[in-house]
Amino acid sequence: MSHPTDSHRLHAHLIGRQGSRDQLNTPSLALDLGMLERNIAAMAAFAKAHGVSLRPHSKTHKCAEIARRQIAAGALGNCCAKLGEAEALTDAGISGLHITSPVVSTPAIERLIALNARASGLMLVVDHPDNADALARAATVAKQVLTVIIDIDPGMHRTGVASPEAVLALARKIATLPSLKLAGVQFYCGRHQHIEDYAERKKQIVERTDYLKGIVALLTANGLKPGIVTGSGTGTHEIDAKLGVFTELQVGSYVFMDHQYNLCDLRGENRPTFEQALQIDARVVSRNTPGMATIDSGLKAMATEAGPPVPLAGVPAGTTTRFMGDEHCAIVAPEGATLPALGERVVLTPPHCDPTVNLYDAYHVVKDGTLVDIWTIEGRGRSR
Amino acid sequence: MSHPTDSHRLHAHLIGRQGSRDQLNTPSLALDLGMLERNIAAMAAFAKAHGVSLRPHSKTHKCAEIARRQIAAGALGNCCAKLGEAEALTDAGISGLHITSPVVSTPAIERLIALNARASGLMLVVDHPDNADALARAATVAKQVLTVIIDIDPGMHRTGVASPEAVLALARKIATLPSLKLAGVQFYCGRHQHIEDYAERKKQIVERTDYLKGIVALLTANGLKPGIVTGSGTGTHEIDAKLGVFTELQVGSYVFMDHQYNLCDLRGENRPTFEQALQIDARVVSRNTPGMATIDSGLKAMATEAGPPVPLAGVPAGTTTRFMGDEHCAIVAPEGATLPALGERVVLTPPHCDPTVNLYDAYHVVKDGTLVDIWTIEGRGRSR
Repeated sequence: MSHPTDSHRLHAHLIGRQGSRDQLNTPSLALDLGMLERNIAAMAAFAKAHGVSLRPHSKTHKCAEIARRQIAAGALGNCCAKLGEAEALTDAGISGLHITSPVVSTPAIERLIALNARASGLMLVVDHPDNADALARAATVAKQVLTVIIDIDPGMHRTGVASPEAVLALARKIATLPSLKLAGVQFYCGRHQHIEDYAERKKQIVERTDYLKGIVALLTANGLKPGIVTGSGTGTHEIDAKLGVFTELQVGSYVFMDHQYNLCDLRGENRPTFEQALQIDARVVSRNTPGMATIDSGLKAMATEAGPPVPLAGVPAGTTTRFMGDEHCAIVAPEGATLPALGERVVLTPPHCDPTVNLYDAYHVVKDGTLVDIWTIEGRGRSR
Repeated sequence: MSHPTDSHRLHAHLIGRQGSRDQLNTPSLALDLGMLERNIAAMAAFAKAHGVSLRPHSKTHKCAEIARRQIAAGALGNCCAKLGEAEALTDAGISGLHITSPVVSTPAIERLIALNARASGLMLVVDHPDNADALARAATVAKQVLTVIIDIDPGMHRTGVASPEAVLALARKIATLPSLKLAGVQFYCGRHQHIEDYAERKKQIVERTDYLKGIVALLTANGLKPGIVTGSGTGTHEIDAKLGVFTELQVGSYVFMDHQYNLCDLRGENRPTFEQALQIDARVVSRNTPGMATIDSGLKAMATEAGPPVPLAGVPAGTTTRFMGDEHCAIVAPEGATLPALGERVVLTPPHCDPTVNLYDAYHVVKDGTLVDIWTIEGRGRSR
């Protein structure tokens, strides 16, 4: 599965050369190693102090090397959004994977069974009795047991079982299927992660946690106590840990901290909890219009649904950006300021990390202006 | 450079099997072969009838097999947005490439010189005297000649020389540099491509073409008549061809026709000129909320800056879609209609083809519900 990426071909010779970040072809995805290490250590310390486990979500990084570092810091494994990502991380040696979206279609279930035979500690969600039946049939034929987690809809209506009664009914059904092992429940409040105000986020999460508590109590009263209660995210991790219902947290974005998450007051401390480790290196490629310059990074270099990129370095304070098509952004200087010259490097922070990472084959791992390593993004494009 | 993609690994065994489109893992990018062939033939016939050459823009398809088919139908070669795409297509055997964005930085110019040594008929734009100097220096050291095209800003301020006088000055400068060969000018009115109304688009293009004509006349009067005048796009190809200034057209989107282009009345005929050949196959993976279903294709399966995908097949008329994060969309049925069941396939048309293609490793080439081939997207992610 592993092959040298375009990034390796272009840049492997720059690893370890003093100041080599400035020689990278652009656009390139840069990852500040010191910031990444501090983010991983800080979340691990937080989880330990609060007696909760971590199974960080790889939907953010999609990268076996980062998963290994999270596991080395104490995590149980990684979550994966899709079967294809779980295949990619398994093939790169990562175990303890949990697939957080339903695996439903016939070809996907065939691949799941093949993966389950070679993956240690694999789990996946189920949110429908028909899907439970289909998984059980396939596992029975293969003489396997699949470990499943019931996904509960917190009100987003994306995935998950819609009511406490339906959760109980599905749990009872799974208990009758010998090829499925029910390990617990999942409850992911995706929308709540991004509420910027701490008090408002906490208020809403407390209300949702009461709903989850009721379901856990209902299952327990019926002899189906969930061993695992998994969910949460970077936005609500502190609140969730203190509420004490989750046994493990699916935090993802804390490793990189995109711009939007950085605006959220994560712990009610009025200061950033983690550092913005993920950056995009770009260069000025056209400079014919006064007050603006065009850089070589556009719609194909970053996810766009959260707005234009935020300049981090290489431009005067107050510089703004706007998209100029697939390959370019404009950078616009405040009155009187001098923009970088043709060929000069500009550093941007992506507005939304997860789908931005999906555009790149590898991280350029940097420290003090030097490229120190290149890490393949094994899960890139593995959305099937 | 060529290696089997995830799509080849998963689906090569389905090629030629009757009805195999329904067995594809999703999300998958489907390309209707009949529609593609008709689009390529129609544009080739149009260009021939109007006495203009085609050098179609590969920024849309990024794929050597489609470039080969365009060239077989009479095209001079392909345009590429970036040096990395030109490397990818050259390594896959395509010649006659023109790079339509400036190549500026030191590492990029090194790669350009290496590419120029192995690529037949390579051209690239230049829009600044400093860049012309840098290109000339590198070509001189390598004992090469680089063929360059002066990029003229049509008023978008993305790339290009800003005034007729500056174009003349740059042309004169290039004429003094023995390692650069000036082949012509480029004039790409990107914004105008998407004006839906034919008459309004035509009015604005006529005005811009007068500006271009003035520059061509100025160069000609100074003994620097451009041999090549390149530009245009799917949106304005008919108007540009009839105005007769361009010697070659950079049409790209006509091969696939995304949703937005399909709304444009391309030839003032009040009907679609080309067919929507590019589609996304998705599947229902959750179905617990009345009136809606969740499919397995989200922000990572399609470009998002042009809005949500448009359902094409597999859903009742009047069904709408909305994004539900990186991995999912919701499909919402009109009152009383029945949505597809868990695991069923839905076909979508992407709102913007070019950056959508950039998310996938390969096209699943389909004909009458059967997978007939898988074509690698060699230029995917090659934005450097």
